[in-house]
Amino acid sequence: MKFAFVVKTVASVVLSRKLVCNHSCPGKAVPFLITRNLQVLSSLRSQPEAPAWGSKKHKNKQKIKIQFINIMADPKIEEILAPFRAAVKEQGDKVRQLKESGALEIDLKKAVAELKARKKILEDKELELTPVEASFDRAKMEDLLKRRFFFDQSFAIYGGITGQFDFGPMGCAMKANMLSTWRSFFILEEQMLEVDCSILTPEPVLKASGHVDRFADLMVKDDKNGECFRLDHLIKAHLEKVKSDKKTTAEVKVECEDIVIKLDGMNKEEMRVILRKFEMKAPLTNNELSDPMEFNLMFSTSIGPTGLVKGYLRPETAQGIFVNFKRLLEFNQGKLPFAAAQIGNSFRNEISPRSGLIRVREFTMAEIEHFCDPSDKSHPKFDEVRHVQVLLYSACNQMDGKAAELVTIGKAVDERIIANETLAYFMARIQQYMTKVGVDPKKLRFRQHMNNEMAHYACDCWDAECLTSYGWVECVGCADRSAYDLSQHTKSTGVRLVAEKKLPEPKTIDVVEVVAVKGAVGKSFKKEAKEIMEALSKLEPATVAEVEESLKTNGKYLLEIGTNSYSLTTDMLEVKRYQKTTYVEEYVPNVIEPSFGIGRIMYAIFEHNFKVRSDDGQRTYFSLPPVIAPLKCSVLPLSNNADFVPYIRQLSRDLTIADVSYRVDDSSGSIGRRYARTDEIAIPFGITIDFDSLKEPHSATLRERDSMGQVRIPLKEIAGVVRDLTYGKTTWTDVEAKYPKFEQQETKS
Amino acid sequence: MKFAFVVKTVASVVLSRKLVCNHSCPGKAVPFLITRNLQVLSSLRSQPEAPAWGSKKHKNKQKIKIQFINIMADPKIEEILAPFRAAVKEQGDKVRQLKESGALEIDLKKAVAELKARKKILEDKELELTPVEASFDRAKMEDLLKRRFFFDQSFAIYGGITGQFDFGPMGCAMKANMLSTWRSFFILEEQMLEVDCSILTPEPVLKASGHVDRFADLMVKDDKNGECFRLDHLIKAHLEKVKSDKKTTAEVKVECEDIVIKLDGMNKEEMRVILRKFEMKAPLTNNELSDPMEFNLMFSTSIGPTGLVKGYLRPETAQGIFVNFKRLLEFNQGKLPFAAAQIGNSFRNEISPRSGLIRVREFTMAEIEHFCDPSDKSHPKFDEVRHVQVLLYSACNQMDGKAAELVTIGKAVDERIIANETLAYFMARIQQYMTKVGVDPKKLRFRQHMNNEMAHYACDCWDAECLTSYGWVECVGCADRSAYDLSQHTKSTGVRLVAEKKLPEPKTIDVVEVVAVKGAVGKSFKKEAKEIMEALSKLEPATVAEVEESLKTNGKYLLEIGTNSYSLTTDMLEVKRYQKTTYVEEYVPNVIEPSFGIGRIMYAIFEHNFKVRSDDGQRTYFSLPPVIAPLKCSVLPLSNNADFVPYIRQLSRDLTIADVSYRVDDSSGSIGRRYARTDEIAIPFGITIDFDSLKEPHSATLRERDSMGQVRIPLKEIAGVVRDLTYGKTTWTDVEAKYPKFEQQETKS
Repeated sequence: MKFAFVVKTVASVVLSRKLVCNHSCPGKAVPFLITRNLQVLSSLRSQPEAPAWGSKKHKNKQKIKIQFINIMADPKIEEILAPFRAAVKEQGDKVRQLKESGALEIDLKKAVAELKARKKILEDKELELTPVEASFDRAKMEDLLKRRFFFDQSFAIYGGITGQFDFGPMGCAMKANMLSTWRSFFILEEQMLEVDCSILTPEPVLKASGHVDRFADLMVKDDKNGECFRLDHLIKAHLEKVKSDKKTTAEVKVECEDIVIKLDGMNKEEMRVILRKFEMKAPLTNNELSDPMEFNLMFSTSIGPTGLVKGYLRPETAQGIFVNFKRLLEFNQGKLPFAAAQIGNSFRNEISPRSGLIRVREFTMAEIEHFCDPSDKSHPKFDEVRHVQVLLYSACNQMDGKAAELVTIGKAVDERIIANETLAYFMARIQQYMTKVGVDPKKLRFRQHMNNEMAHYACDCWDAECLTSYGWVECVGCADRSAYDLSQHTKSTGVRLVAEKKLPEPKTIDVVEVVAVKGAVGKSFKKEAKEIMEALSKLEPATVAEVEESLKTNGKYLLEIGTNSYSLTTDMLEVKRYQKTTYVEEYVPNVIEPSFGIGRIMYAIFEHNFKVRSDDGQRTYFSLPPVIAPLKCSVLPLSNNADFVPYIRQLSRDLTIADVSYRVDDSSGSIGRRYARTDEIAIPFGITIDFDSLKEPHSATLRERDSMGQVRIPLKEIAGVVRDLTYGKTTWTDVEAKYPKFEQQETKS
Repeated sequence: MKFAFVVKTVASVVLSRKLVCNHSCPGKAVPFLITRNLQVLSSLRSQPEAPAWGSKKHKNKQKIKIQFINIMADPKIEEILAPFRAAVKEQGDKVRQLKESGALEIDLKKAVAELKARKKILEDKELELTPVEASFDRAKMEDLLKRRFFFDQSFAIYGGITGQFDFGPMGCAMKANMLSTWRSFFILEEQMLEVDCSILTPEPVLKASGHVDRFADLMVKDDKNGECFRLDHLIKAHLEKVKSDKKTTAEVKVECEDIVIKLDGMNKEEMRVILRKFEMKAPLTNNELSDPMEFNLMFSTSIGPTGLVKGYLRPETAQGIFVNFKRLLEFNQGKLPFAAAQIGNSFRNEISPRSGLIRVREFTMAEIEHFCDPSDKSHPKFDEVRHVQVLLYSACNQMDGKAAELVTIGKAVDERIIANETLAYFMARIQQYMTKVGVDPKKLRFRQHMNNEMAHYACDCWDAECLTSYGWVECVGCADRSAYDLSQHTKSTGVRLVAEKKLPEPKTIDVVEVVAVKGAVGKSFKKEAKEIMEALSKLEPATVAEVEESLKTNGKYLLEIGTNSYSLTTDMLEVKRYQKTTYVEEYVPNVIEPSFGIGRIMYAIFEHNFKVRSDDGQRTYFSLPPVIAPLKCSVLPLSNNADFVPYIRQLSRDLTIADVSYRVDDSSGSIGRRYARTDEIAIPFGITIDFDSLKEPHSATLRERDSMGQVRIPLKEIAGVVRDLTYGKTTWTDVEAKYPKFEQQETKS
């Protein structure tokens, strides 16, 4: 079979190189108002092998400058870029032509590789011409993340395991806040059906979903010590070395470049040839390498004591929802559309995990499966998001050498850039959620999968990508999975995962079925008669025709049940034809799937909110929005004077009643130092009790983290003010307008 | 080594049979006011092999009557029981004597087995004499749980996997509410440090914790088809059959009874002898059985592509906290005591999972590790719980044949029944949490582990047990784990997991250390000199003495580093002695661990809240407390009349703002039928919009699920009233007092 396969979301980067190109643009390319373009130095995919989290090599490489490309602002630059854009477009058009003319797969593939090569040259050129706009010190941020234990490598005292992380108190609270916001934003607001399914999954389920056969990466092994390398990483690193060798001829250098660019589209054999041609050896040991082999990315185990029931840790939460479809449909009283959702951990045995939280072996996902009638993908709440502006990097634009464009959701659907209302509705909601929890909207875009990288089951797929120092990172996938999964599970289990809808008017249909003549079958087959009759009643229409034909020509039909076959003669079977009136029609629902990688979003939030005080490069902090800040408020007594204690206690009670999480920091150290420490763990508001607080009218200082502004507020009002600030019912500007600015304490001890 | 091992909580029932008896009562037995005694027909342990969830056999066995024993109410019964109590006490005393005199392990073990036998006879007698107080129809409850998809077997369309369950929308919401209540009740209120650690755990971590070597059950295999059986279950079932055979002699029957009673205390060899003596065969196939073998209950897998890094799915969340101790202590600015907490999934590969949610392969735990100074286990908030009454079934009472006793937490600590304030504080908090989320306080007791069933690391352990139709089920373990885990990980990693405390006054200590003579070592060992000097600086005091001795007698010392050894002569080493003044002292913190099995608590809540309407046996429902009810409120338009729509919409908005989860049920069907349906999914409050609602002053009917009482409330106030009812700020009685009773609708369409 020729179709390609991508298992959604976080792994699509990994898998996309295995895909066949069969691109055609949905709708046609329409020019939009281009207001802003964001691209990055190096995309995630073209990053060279990144060293492990926290390693020395890792730290040395961390000072990376992010460059924003804002080309449209400068017509001169655009003039230079014009020929490069044209080159991409030319090749894009060629790919389209090949597709339309039904060209050979091999020719199509070559053309796509060339297209990618031209896209890369264009991106490099864009970069070269762009002035640096912002700089970001990843080492400094990672230092803060580790030092205040937002998260860190798991089992570090045992040497650690790559690709596994533990979240400390602040990271854990932030993650819990992200998930609880997600739950209200999606599940409650949209009245979705949340489920919580098993992680350990028996093999047949993942066989049906395609994961057992196709969820794999290519790797090679060191022949002597067995160390494994991801083949594409290895080839890329080796060829970079060859290229930079002075002895290498110009011709070979060009060849190396060409291979690196085309690597993503190569199959096992093509890569094997390159591996051998360049006589690659294992890095460090210089041992011989094995031939490439597929390595399935699922963790396997046995369920139960016999070792006979093979199982895997689920690689996505989605399958748990699909196998429960019937129960969910019934819970929803048989009505469609409805959405089910699940928050939970999934597992992928990456060959070489890297880039901190971005490629890990164990991760939390939040997935939605919206089931709907394939003939009606409208959405009742679409008008509520019609006005939302999103930055779309459509497949067409990617093929035409154009940049991403800012359009409204409504227009994108009207112009058929986004395939349907439901998909578009979720994209708008994804963007709203992302910005609510702290993703910088200027660093968020939706990139459409080109047909050659899209999973075979999907009709359309858009990734919400966040710009980080690792490039554009896919954080949320939003795919139209069509009827693929339900059909697969129906095929594997015989359980019909379908919905019913009322026909506009009753329909009369012709029925043809094979009916057993009870007496005759019973006489011939005795005990087995029942099973035979059951099997006959379940025959598909196509088989019925076959039976009829066989009876006519051979006077008998060979019925196969499992490994047995039964010869049924004309006296035992009757083919009946009649008409039936039906009022409903069965159909396999389609699925629109927004799938969130929580760890990746979290990482993007960290980068987008990492700040350094302009007056002191050592004072770093996270400007997290209060809704996801681990704690909402700190309470700081000026000193450990016993007089402060009752005020601290009362304030703590007030904050608890107001449902505001807080932390009392009564350690020694100046207020300034303690503020700096609470800034580091992203606490947005700080209350200081000083000697003025002891006097009537009792008051305290409230400080805001980002502006460092301070106001004086009556003690009784302060918990309410912090609550309103936290839940977005008032703003800091309002608070500053309402209360006097804090200058300095009047009373001293 | 002689010590025993229990891996806490949910598995202790599984493991307790492997334990050595070394009982001695903490404090002495003190008579308390006995106000109530609760015991049950059959304890979890003495249940015969239960059939799988949902199987026919399972359903047939489900009509179980729970009998409460309230013996103290009847002195006549107590008179009959007296000799049985005395027999238990006699044997309990004998066990104590044997322990004190340091008797042989084998004698002790026999005595404990006899003690258990007598306890069982007492329990059976108690039961025989007790009138039936309540009946419970498990089949009916399970039907409701499945039908409304609270939870059900995972992967059912693929035939299902025993011991794995998926939670549907209502079960999932209820679980999420239980966890969020847990989070505010423990983590926020007690300012604990929450973490979220990896599930996949490398082998060395679980080797150190003892799980790799000892977390196992005994099983036998069918020699031909490889089917596995838990040995104790198999023996029990076989002997029950032998006993009921008419041909069996009275003598053999007694022997069978004796074995069944003593089975829990038997080792592998003793069980093997019984297996062979009774010539047991595999059930169903009648094939030969293998010798008993240990089966480790952890799921194993490989991490990474080489297959060389062995890992397990964690069997408890606790280890993730222990390996992060240093980071957490640092986060807490070095201060003790503090508590860390974790909510997450753990995995145990049960040989034969059963009893629905009670023994499963994948389950959610919520664990707290409270780290404290071993010399100070007081708790600052102890006075807040001093008055709380708990039902304690102490080890002493178990050995003395007495029943459980109701005492206050304060008294239990004063009388040394509970070992320390911190343990007692958590027990009170556990009880408060359990009753808050819906556990019937009359069906909750704390059973102390007898020393012979306690893990070797624990000084005291109490299980919160819930009475269900499966007997008393351990739902929360509350153990003093002492310094066991931190010491084990220190031993395995060399990383000192300790805390420091200021000494009351500075202490001068004698230091003795080996110092390398740099020049001499450098000259002899060149490159390796640095490593040698480092190794020398890390020598333990005991080894320093050894070095000194060796230099004196042999003139040299053989230093081993890894596989290399270095001969160091007198000219290279100097032994230095001096005095040092220290102000702090290092110590290994102790750990108090409350560990919650969320699924088990959930199951107990279902049983304790399952109700049948007195007037209609078919109308079943769950009287879940609003705080954990999946949805707080239903909104029911009387009919699908379009006039209701704007009111429904406004009410929905009001409820969303009031943070009350709700569900609109606008399906056809009478209001009564819809109420019944919302009762089934435990929705505590229902709002009906009828034709009176359309008139000024607009109002609606509010109905309460348990009492089925109905009042009429102004539409504007209703969301606030439901919110206050949900979060316990008002009661239904108050609402009934304030608003007029609803009689019937005045306006018709």
